[in-house]
Amino acid sequence: MKKHNFYAGPSILPQYTIKNTADAILNFEGTGLSLMEVSHRSKEFVAVMDEAQQLFKDLLKIPEGYEVLFLGGGASTQFAMIPYNLMKSKSAYLNTGAWAKKALKEAKGFGEVVEVASSAEAIFNYIPKDYKIPADADYFHITTNNTIYGTEIHHDMDIDIPLIADMSSDIFSRPIDISKYALIYGGAQKNLAPSGIAFIIVRKDILGKMDRHIPTMLDYQTHIDKGSMFNTPPVVPIFAALQTLKWLRDQGGIDAIYKMNVDKAAYLYNEIDTNPMFKGTVVDKEDRSLMNICWVMAEGYEEYEKEFLDFATNKGMVGIKGHRSVGGFRASTYNALPKESIEALVACMQEFKSLKS
Amino acid sequence: MKKHNFYAGPSILPQYTIKNTADAILNFEGTGLSLMEVSHRSKEFVAVMDEAQQLFKDLLKIPEGYEVLFLGGGASTQFAMIPYNLMKSKSAYLNTGAWAKKALKEAKGFGEVVEVASSAEAIFNYIPKDYKIPADADYFHITTNNTIYGTEIHHDMDIDIPLIADMSSDIFSRPIDISKYALIYGGAQKNLAPSGIAFIIVRKDILGKMDRHIPTMLDYQTHIDKGSMFNTPPVVPIFAALQTLKWLRDQGGIDAIYKMNVDKAAYLYNEIDTNPMFKGTVVDKEDRSLMNICWVMAEGYEEYEKEFLDFATNKGMVGIKGHRSVGGFRASTYNALPKESIEALVACMQEFKSLKS
Repeated sequence: MKKHNFYAGPSILPQYTIKNTADAILNFEGTGLSLMEVSHRSKEFVAVMDEAQQLFKDLLKIPEGYEVLFLGGGASTQFAMIPYNLMKSKSAYLNTGAWAKKALKEAKGFGEVVEVASSAEAIFNYIPKDYKIPADADYFHITTNNTIYGTEIHHDMDIDIPLIADMSSDIFSRPIDISKYALIYGGAQKNLAPSGIAFIIVRKDILGKMDRHIPTMLDYQTHIDKGSMFNTPPVVPIFAALQTLKWLRDQGGIDAIYKMNVDKAAYLYNEIDTNPMFKGTVVDKEDRSLMNICWVMAEGYEEYEKEFLDFATNKGMVGIKGHRSVGGFRASTYNALPKESIEALVACMQEFKSLKS
Repeated sequence: MKKHNFYAGPSILPQYTIKNTADAILNFEGTGLSLMEVSHRSKEFVAVMDEAQQLFKDLLKIPEGYEVLFLGGGASTQFAMIPYNLMKSKSAYLNTGAWAKKALKEAKGFGEVVEVASSAEAIFNYIPKDYKIPADADYFHITTNNTIYGTEIHHDMDIDIPLIADMSSDIFSRPIDISKYALIYGGAQKNLAPSGIAFIIVRKDILGKMDRHIPTMLDYQTHIDKGSMFNTPPVVPIFAALQTLKWLRDQGGIDAIYKMNVDKAAYLYNEIDTNPMFKGTVVDKEDRSLMNICWVMAEGYEEYEKEFLDFATNKGMVGIKGHRSVGGFRASTYNALPKESIEALVACMQEFKSLKS
């Protein structure tokens, strides 16, 4: 049976990435050796790293003055690296969910942290709009897409202090004006690669202003100076990332994938909004994520939750159980998810309605 | 042409690991999905993590009271995590090479660091023996195998303060008495897995004694509490590590692989010592590494260095160029390297001698 992969992350990757990575693990670039067992200093792997960084910059139209890094340790390590490198005494965070809160918590180890607004009181089912960013904060941190709750900030803010964004789950899903950000980061395991690397886009002029001692591996400058090769980089995820970037280029780049993402999300949100058995969890439609779509059983149908999950699972839907803090269902609709999978899910929802009404 | 992989790291892995990882990237445990695109919380991946940790403990005969972690960020991140978690004000390091020095340098950010001895004056071609470990240091740090220089500490020290060892390049190569160590760590990309994870074996009672704030991701306790799943772990390297551990078990475990390692190394060292064109770089034979074997052209034959490198490369030897700080040649002879590869290299050395004498 055909599986439809709606996992929130690690999550669906293009077949192009999967096939090329499997091939390289058997024989990397005709070396007769596995991708897993060649030196990261070999000319073959250095070429992979260089091409991945360049294509990453090209696809996102990253302006001069920024550097792209691929580092181990995941986005969670970035939660600490950001204040380590950029927070003198005060920072500001927008609390839009569990990951935003974890980022905020780490910064508290480095000084005063202002939570400018929070939607915690409503299980983060909207993005706070009215708040004031302290002008004397060293930076303002946002989480653009909230994987668990299905909310997303769809625009690039124009603010007066350095803007830092965790884009773990929406990088490469829509056009971004990179120049609005001082630093963008994320785990790669959604729209890019298997788990094991974080990407960082950093404007170089914001660095080098701290007095504190920064451990070498936590210092962005270390990795800029060595082109992400200060220590042995995670070779398999970086190779896989390059494949996904090539696939994305072949799809027509970010403008093209964005159109497909809008179309896919609209198709599923339409079903959620019109099928009487279900309802979306995100109140304000402009806050709805294009990448993680959350819904629950509508009033009067709560008893069918488990039955629908089993029904859909038996038809090949994988990973649609909602996060425990929200309940219900979540379909992650990352770049690599074909519309066919959305159609299969919507067909499940329609069929289930016919069975029950 | 058959390639013989002597890379220092990332380096040769068993064909069993390579084939099973490539297969899982196409279809993981019959899920119909790639290993790269399944949730780390799926029952299939949780089983991989659990089995890898258990087999790691079983093969090394790790006693009660220790925990095994698999973390992103490489051994270089451990250089900072160790003092962060374990150094109150003073630590002691044995300087046996570039990696030992990097570890030592990181500790300096946390207090007083005593370098008890160094072989830097002789390009680290021996392991210092006579030194005094300060009794009031919080721990003593050693690098058991020095990949660049081909030296190795072959015994488990019995000392009065906590002993910490970087075993990046000799873990699983010989029996170890784990009880002699407070913490053992290393990058996985030699005897275990592709790059992208570090392993840590930590005696739990040494933790929790610091007053300083430790960032969440740098706190060993975080990862112990969550079984290395606090954040999304690097799934591909962990899956590959499990394959290598199974392969090692099937070889007869560490005692059996140790015998093979002794036999392989003796065969190559014998050629280095008896072939008049070459000489070993490590003075004291008891300091010679079983994992990284270094040699140069003997006096009078220096002019042939480049020619021998080309000669051997053309016969399928990969990665035998010595590190620039030592020169000459280095053959890394990790667990997965078959004796056949050593025999092929020795045949090259003998044939080259016949051609030139």
